[in-house]
Amino acid sequence: MVNSIKVQAPGTVANLVCGFDVLGLCLHEPYDIMEVQLLDEPVIKIQSADGYPLPTDPQRNTAGAPLVEMVKELDNSVGFEVIIHKHIKPGSGIGSSAASAAGAVVAANMLLENKFSKEDLVRFAMFGEKVASGVKHADNIAPCIYGGITLIRSIFPLDIVTIPAPDLYVTVVHPQIEVKTADARQILRKEVLLKDAIKQWGNIAGLVAGFMKNDLDLIGRSLEDVIIEPVRSILIPGFDEVKRKSKEAGALGGGISGSGPSIFMLSKEKSTAQAVAQLMNEIYDRIGLDRHTYVTKINHQGVSLAPTLTPKSA
Amino acid sequence: MVNSIKVQAPGTVANLVCGFDVLGLCLHEPYDIMEVQLLDEPVIKIQSADGYPLPTDPQRNTAGAPLVEMVKELDNSVGFEVIIHKHIKPGSGIGSSAASAAGAVVAANMLLENKFSKEDLVRFAMFGEKVASGVKHADNIAPCIYGGITLIRSIFPLDIVTIPAPDLYVTVVHPQIEVKTADARQILRKEVLLKDAIKQWGNIAGLVAGFMKNDLDLIGRSLEDVIIEPVRSILIPGFDEVKRKSKEAGALGGGISGSGPSIFMLSKEKSTAQAVAQLMNEIYDRIGLDRHTYVTKINHQGVSLAPTLTPKSA
Repeated sequence: MVNSIKVQAPGTVANLVCGFDVLGLCLHEPYDIMEVQLLDEPVIKIQSADGYPLPTDPQRNTAGAPLVEMVKELDNSVGFEVIIHKHIKPGSGIGSSAASAAGAVVAANMLLENKFSKEDLVRFAMFGEKVASGVKHADNIAPCIYGGITLIRSIFPLDIVTIPAPDLYVTVVHPQIEVKTADARQILRKEVLLKDAIKQWGNIAGLVAGFMKNDLDLIGRSLEDVIIEPVRSILIPGFDEVKRKSKEAGALGGGISGSGPSIFMLSKEKSTAQAVAQLMNEIYDRIGLDRHTYVTKINHQGVSLAPTLTPKSA
Repeated sequence: MVNSIKVQAPGTVANLVCGFDVLGLCLHEPYDIMEVQLLDEPVIKIQSADGYPLPTDPQRNTAGAPLVEMVKELDNSVGFEVIIHKHIKPGSGIGSSAASAAGAVVAANMLLENKFSKEDLVRFAMFGEKVASGVKHADNIAPCIYGGITLIRSIFPLDIVTIPAPDLYVTVVHPQIEVKTADARQILRKEVLLKDAIKQWGNIAGLVAGFMKNDLDLIGRSLEDVIIEPVRSILIPGFDEVKRKSKEAGALGGGISGSGPSIFMLSKEKSTAQAVAQLMNEIYDRIGLDRHTYVTKINHQGVSLAPTLTPKSA
C-alpha cells in the first residue's frame, strides 16, 4: 500500500460573475504542491516546504482542520503528515485556503483508497475555510475537488451540481494589493433591488444554459453582475479598464475572482487569452502595481496527482 | 397559397418558481382555437367565436395589437381577420392574453410562409401583453411561441434561450377567484435580502441544470422560491396545502402559475399528476371554491396547427 503521495492543488475562481456565492471554476494554474503521508497514529503534522509561514497547529491550519475531521470519522485510527509547497498566495482571491484544504483531503483519501465520497471531502474541507475566514463555504472547495465548474445550490444540506462546460481559456491577473474578504463582504448591502436580483438570476440561468449548450455568445452575454461587481470593483485599481479592454480584445467576459483583488477573463482561443494577459500587464505597469498574470484553462479534474510523483512504498 | 388557417394557442406557466420574471413553460392544455385569414387590404378584424366579450378594436385587443405591428412592418400590404375561440380564462394566471397574442402572430406568419423569425413574433406579440397589462413582457409569450421551457434573459435587448427539458407532466388547478396581476405585483417588496436573492439564483441555476441534465431530483430540490411565493401565496386560498400534499403525493414540486391564482405541479409519472389533480379537487371542494383542473404535459412545440384543420385554398 502506498503511504505517501504528492498532489497538485489548484487555484479556483469563486463568485463567478452573476454566480455570487454559488458558482465556482477550477484552474490549472497556479497550484500548490502537497506531499501527504499516512501515519499509523492519530496525529496531524503540518509543515511548510519553502519557509512560507504556515500555522503548524492543525486546528488552525487550513489543511490541518479538514484532516482532523477526517481522522475523527476514522475513529482516530490513522494520522497524516502534510508538507505544503505554497504557491497560491493567500489573499489573492483565487482560492489559496481552499487549495490547501481540498488538496489535503483529496490526497488523504487517495491514501485511504477512496474511502470517502467527493461530497464527504467537501464537507471535511469546509473546516479549512472556517479556519481561514470564519465561515464554512464551498464555492472554492467544490470546484477544487470536483474540477470544472460547480454550482453550490445549498450548503446546508450540501448540494453540489457539476456544470458541464466547454474547454475555455482563463486569464487571471493578481494585482499585488490586499483586499480582505471581510472588507469585501462588509461593503455589500444587505438588501438589493428586486429588479436587479431578477436580472442576476436571468443571467445565471443564461450562464448555466450557455455552459451546458456550449453557446459561447450566450456565455458572453450572461457574464454580467449587476449586484456585487459595481460595489466591489472599486476596491480593485484598474478593474474597469481591464474588463473593457479584455472584452475589446475578444474575451467572452469575466470579473472579480472570489472577493478580489484578482480579475479573471474567459476566452475561447489561447491567442485571445494571451492578448488579454498582455493588456492586463500593460495596465498594471502603467498604474505602477506589481502583479502576477496566468494564462491557463478550465481544469476539469480538480486536485490531481503531481506528475513528478515518486511514491514511497510502505 | 393557403389564406386561412386554424391554430391551437396553448396556456403557459410564467414565473416558474425560482424563475420569477424570466422562466416560462408551455402547456398542451388548455388552449384557445384561433382561425386566422389573410386579407389583401391592411385591416385587422377581430371576432369572438363563442360570444366571449372581446374588444374588437384591434389596438385594444391582445391578438389585434401584435397584428397591427406586423402589418406595419409589411408596409400595410396585407391584413388579417381573426376568429377567437377563447378557452383560457383571462385572469387565470396561465397566459390567456399571451395565447391570443402568440396564436395570432404564429398563425399569421404561417400564412406569410414564415416571413418572420420566432424572435420577431415575440417582439410583435409583446404588444398584446402591453394591451393586457400595460407592460411588455415575454415570459408567457416566449414559451407559447417557442414551446417547452424558455428563459427570457433580457427583454431589451430581447434574449430568449430555450432550455431543453424532460417530458414532464403538469397538473394545473385554477381556483375560480380573481387575483389581479397589478395587485399581485403591488404586494411585492421593491427590495429583497441579498441572502434570499443568492438562494434564489442558486435555485434557478440548479433548476436549469436539472432540466438540461434530466436530473429529476435536482429539479425537485431546486423548485423553491424564497422571495415571491411567500408573499403572493397568501392571495391564494389553499396554496400551502395544495403544495404540501402534492409533494407528499410524489410531485417534483411547483408553485404559483404566473401571478396566480392558478397553481401548477410537475410530476414524472402520469399517475402522480392525476393523483395531484385529485387532491387539488378535494382541497377546493372542501374549501368550497369552484375550480378547473388540468392534467397535461410540457408542450415542446408551442402554438401549432389545430388537428381539425380544413384549409380553404385561395
